[in-house]
Amino acid sequence: MKNVVVVGVGLIGGSFALDIKEKFPDTILYGVDANHYHLEEAINLGIIDKVTDIDNIGNADLVIVAIPVDVTLSVLPIILDNVSDDAIVFDVGSTKEDICLKVKDHPNRRNFLAAHPIAGTEFSGPSAAVKGLFKNKTNIICEVEETTFKLQEKAIQLFKDLGMRIRYMNPKAHDKHIAYVSHLSHISSFMLGKTVIEKEKNERDIFDMAGSGFESTVRLAKSSPAMWTPIFKQNKTNVIETLDEYINNLKQFKSLMEQNDFEAVYKEMEDTNHIKDILNGIK
Amino acid sequence: MKNVVVVGVGLIGGSFALDIKEKFPDTILYGVDANHYHLEEAINLGIIDKVTDIDNIGNADLVIVAIPVDVTLSVLPIILDNVSDDAIVFDVGSTKEDICLKVKDHPNRRNFLAAHPIAGTEFSGPSAAVKGLFKNKTNIICEVEETTFKLQEKAIQLFKDLGMRIRYMNPKAHDKHIAYVSHLSHISSFMLGKTVIEKEKNERDIFDMAGSGFESTVRLAKSSPAMWTPIFKQNKTNVIETLDEYINNLKQFKSLMEQNDFEAVYKEMEDTNHIKDILNGIK
Repeated sequence: MKNVVVVGVGLIGGSFALDIKEKFPDTILYGVDANHYHLEEAINLGIIDKVTDIDNIGNADLVIVAIPVDVTLSVLPIILDNVSDDAIVFDVGSTKEDICLKVKDHPNRRNFLAAHPIAGTEFSGPSAAVKGLFKNKTNIICEVEETTFKLQEKAIQLFKDLGMRIRYMNPKAHDKHIAYVSHLSHISSFMLGKTVIEKEKNERDIFDMAGSGFESTVRLAKSSPAMWTPIFKQNKTNVIETLDEYINNLKQFKSLMEQNDFEAVYKEMEDTNHIKDILNGIK
Repeated sequence: MKNVVVVGVGLIGGSFALDIKEKFPDTILYGVDANHYHLEEAINLGIIDKVTDIDNIGNADLVIVAIPVDVTLSVLPIILDNVSDDAIVFDVGSTKEDICLKVKDHPNRRNFLAAHPIAGTEFSGPSAAVKGLFKNKTNIICEVEETTFKLQEKAIQLFKDLGMRIRYMNPKAHDKHIAYVSHLSHISSFMLGKTVIEKEKNERDIFDMAGSGFESTVRLAKSSPAMWTPIFKQNKTNVIETLDEYINNLKQFKSLMEQNDFEAVYKEMEDTNHIKDILNGIK
């Protein structure tokens, strides 16, 4: 891998760049970004070596597309128009169905690998990029059979070099499951933050009374709206389904409290404690 | 402080014991607990020196009541019956209105200080006790004027020695605010855990796809039902109010998605991002 182009030099794209630079010091890293302050910042932080644009990627061995999922829909076809036969292009978006559909009939579809590394933080932009972000994380690959075998291998070797484990899934199943384990968490956190902010007009009170429990539960409410709005839009049907179930569970819990059925309230919590064992598996 | 009695040798009581032992090595720590395995464990872990019972606390200088809030209602009056005039008794419960009401007319009311240290983890029992748990944490004191001045001073000096900052509040205001910043977070987390577990019958899928975001948002769903059920019961009215508002906010978010009003979805998140500044204040 001589030339790597990172489209979107933020948290995910930037973290890929840092790891690649460390593992393969001879690689030249090119950055593409709609925000030229971010490009400057990425150069200053040593994330990329040079700035380029998507019309100039014919020499790339690898193109990483790490931009909001709505922008990916319009930009990925152009990238595929411009890459050489030996280039592998992968995206990192949190939705997979629309993007796979979008490039389904592209003549260079076989240069593309649809990926979703389950990694990140609530921060964004080049300054959020960190080394080792992908270590021991899962990377979900969709429609692997649509990618040329040699290029699949190249991408998957890179993912393994960065410490990721690979799971294969179809785009529909990916979007459905991820709505539960990721998208819903973000909405529950945003709405918790909203509920508390609305009530506690006097911020000193939240400030002083909030403990680490509240902090951990609203952490995701710091996430970037520019990244998350198009995710919710693309995964609308699945996300609405998870929201319906979540709202129903909350209503039922409330109704048990109203009926003074605290034995059932206890049981609700006891049954969910089982999440411990599941979470232990994540570590 | 020669003799300190810890009623409830779990996460909070045990952590107080560990800090007191470190700061005041001459203190003898007595443990009281309904669970004799916990007492044994607390002795083995060096949390307490001796086991006692609440009929034998006449020599105590300090009694810490760190048990579920429903048990506190029945046990605290007995403790106050049994302590000497110079003993200070404080509780650490997450609800304050019922307990203050319960001992309002107790002849030894002035030996009692109603406290709520905003500290803890999702774990419970003696093995969850840790040194330094209270450092830089807020301790909310209710009805301070009902406690003898000399004994107030003694307790508050201890809290400061352990690194806590003190806030004074009336029990009604405490229970109302804490419903938002603590109790609601626990329910949102438990119900998120429930929603995901119900859907993802095949646990391998949660396991592999869940990232640190999900982990942080459901962390509180590991909490002890024995501790939380009586809290929700005692703070029922406030908690139901927070649940109503939370459910309404979730419904509204869902309805914006259904109407394809993703500009408004963006704005909802952008407005809530402001939680960053509030959380920065907690640190």
